[in-house]
Amino acid sequence: MSNKEFSGIIAYSITPFFRKNDQVNVDVMFEVIDDLISSGANAIAGLGSAGECAYLNDDEWQLVARQTINHVADRVPVIIGISELTTKKAVERAVYANKHGANAIMVSPFSYYKLTEDEIFDHYQAISDAIDIPIMIYNNPATCGVDMSPAFMLSMIENIEHAEMIKESSGDIQRMHTIQQQSKGTVPFFNGCNYIALDALNAGATGWCTVAPSLIGELPKQLFNAVSTDEQQQAETLFSNQLPLLQFIVKEGLASTAKAGLAIRDIDAGDARLPLKPLTSDKKAELELLMTV
Amino acid sequence: MSNKEFSGIIAYSITPFFRKNDQVNVDVMFEVIDDLISSGANAIAGLGSAGECAYLNDDEWQLVARQTINHVADRVPVIIGISELTTKKAVERAVYANKHGANAIMVSPFSYYKLTEDEIFDHYQAISDAIDIPIMIYNNPATCGVDMSPAFMLSMIENIEHAEMIKESSGDIQRMHTIQQQSKGTVPFFNGCNYIALDALNAGATGWCTVAPSLIGELPKQLFNAVSTDEQQQAETLFSNQLPLLQFIVKEGLASTAKAGLAIRDIDAGDARLPLKPLTSDKKAELELLMTV
Amino acid sequence: MSNKEFSGIIAYSITPFFRKNDQVNVDVMFEVIDDLISSGANAIAGLGSAGECAYLNDDEWQLVARQTINHVADRVPVIIGISELTTKKAVERAVYANKHGANAIMVSPFSYYKLTEDEIFDHYQAISDAIDIPIMIYNNPATCGVDMSPAFMLSMIENIEHAEMIKESSGDIQRMHTIQQQSKGTVPFFNGCNYIALDALNAGATGWCTVAPSLIGELPKQLFNAVSTDEQQQAETLFSNQLPLLQFIVKEGLASTAKAGLAIRDIDAGDARLPLKPLTSDKKAELELLMTV
Amino acid sequence: MSNKEFSGIIAYSITPFFRKNDQVNVDVMFEVIDDLISSGANAIAGLGSAGECAYLNDDEWQLVARQTINHVADRVPVIIGISELTTKKAVERAVYANKHGANAIMVSPFSYYKLTEDEIFDHYQAISDAIDIPIMIYNNPATCGVDMSPAFMLSMIENIEHAEMIKESSGDIQRMHTIQQQSKGTVPFFNGCNYIALDALNAGATGWCTVAPSLIGELPKQLFNAVSTDEQQQAETLFSNQLPLLQFIVKEGLASTAKAGLAIRDIDAGDARLPLKPLTSDKKAELELLMTV
Repeated sequence: MSNKEFSGIIAYSITPFFRKNDQVNVDVMFEVIDDLISSGANAIAGLGSAGECAYLNDDEWQLVARQTINHVADRVPVIIGISELTTKKAVERAVYANKHGANAIMVSPFSYYKLTEDEIFDHYQAISDAIDIPIMIYNNPATCGVDMSPAFMLSMIENIEHAEMIKESSGDIQRMHTIQQQSKGTVPFFNGCNYIALDALNAGATGWCTVAPSLIGELPKQLFNAVSTDEQQQAETLFSNQLPLLQFIVKEGLASTAKAGLAIRDIDAGDARLPLKPLTSDKKAELELLMTV
Repeated sequence: MSNKEFSGIIAYSITPFFRKNDQVNVDVMFEVIDDLISSGANAIAGLGSAGECAYLNDDEWQLVARQTINHVADRVPVIIGISELTTKKAVERAVYANKHGANAIMVSPFSYYKLTEDEIFDHYQAISDAIDIPIMIYNNPATCGVDMSPAFMLSMIENIEHAEMIKESSGDIQRMHTIQQQSKGTVPFFNGCNYIALDALNAGATGWCTVAPSLIGELPKQLFNAVSTDEQQQAETLFSNQLPLLQFIVKEGLASTAKAGLAIRDIDAGDARLPLKPLTSDKKAELELLMTV
Repeated sequence: MSNKEFSGIIAYSITPFFRKNDQVNVDVMFEVIDDLISSGANAIAGLGSAGECAYLNDDEWQLVARQTINHVADRVPVIIGISELTTKKAVERAVYANKHGANAIMVSPFSYYKLTEDEIFDHYQAISDAIDIPIMIYNNPATCGVDMSPAFMLSMIENIEHAEMIKESSGDIQRMHTIQQQSKGTVPFFNGCNYIALDALNAGATGWCTVAPSLIGELPKQLFNAVSTDEQQQAETLFSNQLPLLQFIVKEGLASTAKAGLAIRDIDAGDARLPLKPLTSDKKAELELLMTV
Repeated sequence: MSNKEFSGIIAYSITPFFRKNDQVNVDVMFEVIDDLISSGANAIAGLGSAGECAYLNDDEWQLVARQTINHVADRVPVIIGISELTTKKAVERAVYANKHGANAIMVSPFSYYKLTEDEIFDHYQAISDAIDIPIMIYNNPATCGVDMSPAFMLSMIENIEHAEMIKESSGDIQRMHTIQQQSKGTVPFFNGCNYIALDALNAGATGWCTVAPSLIGELPKQLFNAVSTDEQQQAETLFSNQLPLLQFIVKEGLASTAKAGLAIRDIDAGDARLPLKPLTSDKKAELELLMTV
């Protein structure tokens, strides 16, 4: 298994709930996954930020992880997100994902107390020691309360066996140049901040992790392709067209927006879990407009 | 039951673990609680930041909540901390604490996605609707990823039945003046930022939530008393003496420092849970010195 | 000459302008200075933030410095503010103030490019080498674009001959405790952030630099006296009464608010210089109300 | 006169000083300007950040403005930077630049007190009313203490006659997309943050304001050309090669680095003015290495 398999559009699948009982709706989850693959997704990311990973109990988390992997069934690689407060729980989930066939895991150091680099390093080390699939180090200071510098993440990749890739969601394009520069292009990195997608791909990002395909189908993939084939004008037009939607997603929240967007497309994935609230009807109307790019 | 019972030193009890198996060590927990009451604590706060609330599983959380309340046995009031990502889980824990005899709950809106004021308001409302004990609204942007303004917290106190008190941990003394001013002194507020304890009490704080009594015994209570009886010089001397320790606690982390300090006092509460790391031996030596104020 | 002379209320005099021609109105400046001394000011600070130091040309600056010193005529000590972009200009102004009889200078490292600690140190050293009066090191990150830590300022006081006092305007009460603690109470420090005045005095501040006496007369002095004589209840009442005004001053701007307030008191000091705009009529009405505490 | 003339590399000329007497060295200034034009600069920016605009007295400022315009002598357009604390002085300098033949002015709202959008708007309006050449609105929060949003700058362009272009130096690539998007591509914007030059040009920036040509000659121009002709691979290689130097410039300071770099190239432009310090010898050695890209 090689991280080389991860490139292009890494599409987040969301976690649908039944409205009647707030249980995970596996059928709709499958529908969403199939839809993503149809839109050209190069990989599926289950239990990422958009998948409400932080809001599921253990049984639900395992169900979603297992069923996502099973249902994708090797059509594309699957990466499972792990964002846990304790090292113990993170290791458990990593082992579970590994055992059930995930091709990689995407690990962010979710924090209550601020963590030192030493503490973060050992957290990743413990996870790596327990598995045999690649780890994507995921930096998302806005949600995780921890900000890892490019230099620190690269040092983990150098020193921790399965740490092989980086996902950068801080929105600072400069960090992508730094990763590219300092690793001499040897470390694959992925963009996790929707509204700088074109900049990131131009800066050498191997792929783009995004929930956007659930809202605008093949457009993200077309953008990736245009960059890959050096059609810069085409890439700019494609990006420019989807930018307002990408900004909307980040501003209104990935989970709530994705579920509202799926509803607009007649896929009822329920609402994001409280305290997250569904979009207001004004916002839904705005979203509907933005989806017809 | 009235929030008037909460004033003075609200001492955090920590959650001790056995070193052999990482299980909650209830006997040591009892010893720590007794020690806090002996040091003059006016109330016990179980499952606060220092209690590693974020790092316990459901069974552990319930065990600690239940046993804390039972063991205190009305010697002083007990407040139970609730810092959950989902409203559902927060409500469950609030109901549990209420049912098992907690005198109040201390609720912070722990977040993965940023929350709007609407979302936070409904979170507190849902909790209030499920219980019949007072809620202390707890603002701690550094750990919870959400920063609530004095005006917003006061509006919740005005509009949500059981929201009655505020705990401010941002470290900004100006906010305490604002709470005092805007509520015309009618809303009890508590300081949660150790190193501004004297400033907060002088600014009208009803009490101080702190883990310090586990390290320096009666000194925090003496400081509170000196302020209460208007012995400003005495208060300044007491504060000045304990300030370096208070700064150390905040800098090195409440849970890790408290456990290191208890070990120095020959109480083995185990280590904080990974990824949190124990203090280095240098830091332990520094702490030992600071504890002999 | 000893810095011991500086304590209590260091009142800012503002720089009045004629409305007809935007020239400095020396007569009104004298009137304002006399008024401040009548209100109990223990020292006059000319050309501070409130004095629009940054908005005067060389001739104006010299005029205000010289005439302030002359007019005070040793009734109380005078400190002259120096906030210059180049070391050369700062030295020139320091020498001018020294030569014309200032009792001290208050120096902040105004910056365009961010400055290193080395650069700031040498800036203060060069000024110190050129004069023989005390320097008050003035930290005001909001206006000056540079934030000096307590430890760095204390190191300058230890190593630079005439650096003897600190003025802290960051609004972070914790820094005052740190200055007090690290200097073992040997370095006089002054509060420059109006709305934490009581906290700062309780934390050991030697004085309070403020424009408030131009708006509310003797009240700041009464607050200082109450703290000095350990009448904590009285101090709290006095502070609580003037707090809304102090918050207003900081929010709306020292120079604009002071001039609006003087106009309410029938002293026409003109407007602050553009781009600063005068208060709107709504804000003036709000100010008028706040001035009748 | 049209802003269309401004595009490509807008090269900053620095302000050289004689070491013996700290006077402006006009001959070296001419040499630097000629050198920039030889390196392919499409325009010269005099008295920008790199030109130490904030550190010159009135006579020096006028000398540099006048002589820069004269010496360029229409070989390329000249834009003069204006970064003044008072509206009055900004207008004076704008009028001076206009009268002496500048093709445009680049105006940033340098601040001591924080400015409201109203105050900033009127500042630009007053300048526009006094001149008949285009204004480039220059946002540089790090040096100027004011941060203008894309929406606010676009509103000024819509409403203020001579406000026609934007220079963005915040380093946030997202703002460039927003400017492009919200203006539907009708407002020319320029990048002022060296290390995101390629991203900015890809995002539609009309040009890049930079001091880099003084250090690495034609490379910035080659980068601009590669982007213009859609040679993305070539652009990435060029950018990647000069990126470490661009990062160094921003980190160590434009004026100090430019003067050190010119010295390495045997052009003695003196040092930046104190409190700015020259690069240490270690940094000079590092710079020398980076200049041989």
